[in-house]
Amino acid sequence: MHVYRTHTCGQLKATDADSQVRLSGWVHRKRDHGNLLFVDLRDHYGITQCVADISSPVFSVLERARPESVVTVTGKVVLRSAETVNPRLPTGAIELQVAEVEIQSIADVLPMQVAGDQDYPEDMRLKYRFLDLRREDVHANMMLRAKVIAFLRRAMQDQGFTEFQTPILTASSPEGARDYLVPSRLHPGKFYALPQAPQQFKQMLMVAGFDRYFQIAPCFRDEAGRADRSPGEFYQLDFEMSYVTQDDVFAAIEPVLEGVFREFGQGRAVTPAPFPRIAYADAMLKYGSDKPDLRNPILIADVTEPFRGSGFGLFAKLVEKGSVVRAIPAPGAAGQPRSWFDKLNEWARENGAGGLGYIQFAAEGPKGPIAKNLDPERVEAIRVAAGLSEGDAVFFACDKPLAAAKFAGQVRTKLGTELDLLEKDVFKLCWTVDFPMYELNEDTGLVEFSHNPFSMPQGGMEALQTQDPLTINAYQYDIICNGIELSSGAIRNHRPDIMYKAFEIAGYTAAHVEEHFGGMLNAFKFGAPPHGGAAPGVDRIVMLLADEPNIREVILFPMNQQAQDLLMQAPAAVLPERLRELHLKLDLPKPKKDAEPTAS
Amino acid sequence: MHVYRTHTCGQLKATDADSQVRLSGWVHRKRDHGNLLFVDLRDHYGITQCVADISSPVFSVLERARPESVVTVTGKVVLRSAETVNPRLPTGAIELQVAEVEIQSIADVLPMQVAGDQDYPEDMRLKYRFLDLRREDVHANMMLRAKVIAFLRRAMQDQGFTEFQTPILTASSPEGARDYLVPSRLHPGKFYALPQAPQQFKQMLMVAGFDRYFQIAPCFRDEAGRADRSPGEFYQLDFEMSYVTQDDVFAAIEPVLEGVFREFGQGRAVTPAPFPRIAYADAMLKYGSDKPDLRNPILIADVTEPFRGSGFGLFAKLVEKGSVVRAIPAPGAAGQPRSWFDKLNEWARENGAGGLGYIQFAAEGPKGPIAKNLDPERVEAIRVAAGLSEGDAVFFACDKPLAAAKFAGQVRTKLGTELDLLEKDVFKLCWTVDFPMYELNEDTGLVEFSHNPFSMPQGGMEALQTQDPLTINAYQYDIICNGIELSSGAIRNHRPDIMYKAFEIAGYTAAHVEEHFGGMLNAFKFGAPPHGGAAPGVDRIVMLLADEPNIREVILFPMNQQAQDLLMQAPAAVLPERLRELHLKLDLPKPKKDAEPTAS
Repeated sequence: MHVYRTHTCGQLKATDADSQVRLSGWVHRKRDHGNLLFVDLRDHYGITQCVADISSPVFSVLERARPESVVTVTGKVVLRSAETVNPRLPTGAIELQVAEVEIQSIADVLPMQVAGDQDYPEDMRLKYRFLDLRREDVHANMMLRAKVIAFLRRAMQDQGFTEFQTPILTASSPEGARDYLVPSRLHPGKFYALPQAPQQFKQMLMVAGFDRYFQIAPCFRDEAGRADRSPGEFYQLDFEMSYVTQDDVFAAIEPVLEGVFREFGQGRAVTPAPFPRIAYADAMLKYGSDKPDLRNPILIADVTEPFRGSGFGLFAKLVEKGSVVRAIPAPGAAGQPRSWFDKLNEWARENGAGGLGYIQFAAEGPKGPIAKNLDPERVEAIRVAAGLSEGDAVFFACDKPLAAAKFAGQVRTKLGTELDLLEKDVFKLCWTVDFPMYELNEDTGLVEFSHNPFSMPQGGMEALQTQDPLTINAYQYDIICNGIELSSGAIRNHRPDIMYKAFEIAGYTAAHVEEHFGGMLNAFKFGAPPHGGAAPGVDRIVMLLADEPNIREVILFPMNQQAQDLLMQAPAAVLPERLRELHLKLDLPKPKKDAEPTAS
Repeated sequence: MHVYRTHTCGQLKATDADSQVRLSGWVHRKRDHGNLLFVDLRDHYGITQCVADISSPVFSVLERARPESVVTVTGKVVLRSAETVNPRLPTGAIELQVAEVEIQSIADVLPMQVAGDQDYPEDMRLKYRFLDLRREDVHANMMLRAKVIAFLRRAMQDQGFTEFQTPILTASSPEGARDYLVPSRLHPGKFYALPQAPQQFKQMLMVAGFDRYFQIAPCFRDEAGRADRSPGEFYQLDFEMSYVTQDDVFAAIEPVLEGVFREFGQGRAVTPAPFPRIAYADAMLKYGSDKPDLRNPILIADVTEPFRGSGFGLFAKLVEKGSVVRAIPAPGAAGQPRSWFDKLNEWARENGAGGLGYIQFAAEGPKGPIAKNLDPERVEAIRVAAGLSEGDAVFFACDKPLAAAKFAGQVRTKLGTELDLLEKDVFKLCWTVDFPMYELNEDTGLVEFSHNPFSMPQGGMEALQTQDPLTINAYQYDIICNGIELSSGAIRNHRPDIMYKAFEIAGYTAAHVEEHFGGMLNAFKFGAPPHGGAAPGVDRIVMLLADEPNIREVILFPMNQQAQDLLMQAPAAVLPERLRELHLKLDLPKPKKDAEPTAS
């Protein structure tokens, strides 16, 4: 018989009755019935009920073993009596009559319980993460994460992608967030950087001819933590393809994303591929966001015209000055009490808006302060434009186009929640496409890149040479799930001539481009294929699947919000000789009174 | 028709004749036959011969396209004439008659050629790695690496292991090599470290109850580069299991290792599992190394007794003082000329030995200076002990046991090479087991840990309490392939009480143990399962399979020996404000005359 176990704690069934077995695991729960001691023994695979009789020497050994001690028990499998069978437990048909017990590891009194659902402060959970990870929900989240990643790998391989590891000790990125730096010992005064993303390397891989790359890639950004962003490191399903159009990229990744949500969604519905493609301009108009949450049925409409020159002077004047009016339907809300509308008005003011005008389409006709000041034809035009029926209400956002769109989007989200309109148990995926290449800086009047300067402009060189820059879109896209951006992506600009021109339009000289992006430019001068890709966030996918709002719930050993690893005690002071080797001196801020020296 | 390609460059066959197709790829080679221009078009998947007629406008476009330019060609697939069919090329039955061509990317004059086998200096290859990676051998090595890693992942999953990502920004390791440090911006004066290996995390995972962990794990050591070690980062197939004995660990990983060598060995023989287990003491005696190369048939024998009190005074005196004599057979070498033996003697002196005595078992009887001074019975005892026959020779190493063993091992390796005895086209795998837990420091007379202080001593607490420490072995093991260590591993010491005792024997107080290894000790106090594992080096496995002696040949974007990334220009200077943010000042060495400031 194996020294530790013949079976796992999730394995024994009624058909094993009468066999002699050995199990090892943690003492999950104990119940002392006087002459019988019940021990729920737990391992990674499950829980098995073990029982010791007071007449046996094992009784006192198990009685003394504190919860979470590790024990090995040997004995006979017996069927439980009909009334004690537990159908919710895979091993619930049997129990183990313990004849021998060996203590493998004694547990001290626990700082936090593993069994049960008690909540503990995050700091305690992170400091004793090895205990926290034993808890059923946390354990299950980590297994989900592992399975999701394994699935993504296989799905990408099935799509003809090959995984490569790109360097982690590398050069500082020319753009984006703040890098983590790593001092070089051999090269005094010089630093490596941890990659914010393997963007340059994956493009180098395409230039090197590797056609279809992917990587479950660790990425590093020295940014403050948020609920949906872990300080330090996070993982992306980074991928890139050569000789592809935007549609090819979509066709390659859609089955992977649909697949992962379907496989691990526990029955929740998933948008079937091909996912809807929504042009940026449409998304801003209809959803008030470039990350549309398609679970929300509300569609925003433009109602600028009905307000132009209308009796509702406030909006009429603003429209005259270039503002637009957006209508946000509130289905079925016409009958809500005045207080409900007042509360929304207050919410709007708290969020920086002047207020939130509305019309109620009541049975007795349109109601509310705006309706009073508008001709019936104009009210009817609004009703038609916003697709409203009797019983609905509608709210308005009036501002410059971008501000109006964004505020309308906030109202849409708010109403979706308030009216409980969001479709449940569903993953709604879509692409936002046709992002503008440039935008006008309203302060300076200058043309600037609006998103990613390295995307290929639609229409290529000809568009740059002949079109108004503000009308040029880029082959750039976002993939969105339930209003959460999983990834940006793009068809890259692989042509130095087009890159110089694109930057020239945004006011940059060729010298600037060469100084800042010389590495990629240089590579593109020796034969670069057209290529594109994206990098969906792995942590975000797992968060959505696990329905966890906090990213730390889907990471094994997360840092806290202050970027500290409380388990391993990082970051920590280092010996002075280590700093000397690295040719560094500390340059500490003067300690403030009443302030922790390590808090900033 | 797709804008870039209907097929890859490795796809078209005789059955595609007459179809209209489009290919994209790099101009690999061009051959101008006057009125016909042949272009070998290359992509990731293969090469297709394209042909342009001088009467076509595409002729001059392709003629001007320098090698490595990226082009899209459209035209008809035609069968090659019988005499021009290339059976070695998958597409060798056809060629593409180019009707249209589009230049996607113009290549400048190349700093190094992609086609052909020309050698280039390493610095050039690394600076233009995106070109180097297009070359057939390098490209194939990277694909091999990717496939090996994908295979390892699937094989581990098939063995019931789950892959988890452990943190990369973490705490400094309490032991081992030099860490890379990462300064913390939020915590002035404190540093993260990059993991030398996820050793502590994988043990934490076992304590957290995750039974069978693996990871293709990036590891970081700030050490000088060597042929078999990349500066910066490297990858291990890191794994750990709970509730296992040493044999369970072997049984879990052997199919994975045998499998990977079999799958990618291109017909080379592989040791079938279970691999031989060789006790450390045996390995040192028979192979003169704890990393036995089993391709070498030579077995070392102890022949101390035949020399004790013998007429060969040099050895007899040394034996009197505690030295041992080891016999290293040289099969079939009796007939080698005197000069051959002299050259080996010289080699031995160059390697720090006093010389290399030998006996030739010639047809006319034992020969050589040593044989002359030994009684025939003693010579015969040596012959029998070393398993020699007429026609063989034998060399001797006489020294203190460890030194004699190591030198005998060097001689064994040397003879294996000189006599061309190594078995060819084979991967010989074995385990070295039963490493001693402690050794005697001959200078201080004190007992020290001999390998890994965290391994479980064989016999556990009882052995520590009752045995002479120098007789205690550890549950520690190495896995060796062709004399190269793929990994160390161990059954870990999971019991704080046994850990305190083991350290006490090596002269450490409980306070020392707690100060240095408090994190693991603390975790072990709340119920730790018995566990063990190993971490075979991925880069080394790929080197063996690719038969490449230099690790940089199996890494996508390696740093050079001076730990510089010549492609991305890392490490590099950073802006002063970045250092201020990190609360650091440079503390540069004074520049030496005639020395580059960045070279040390």
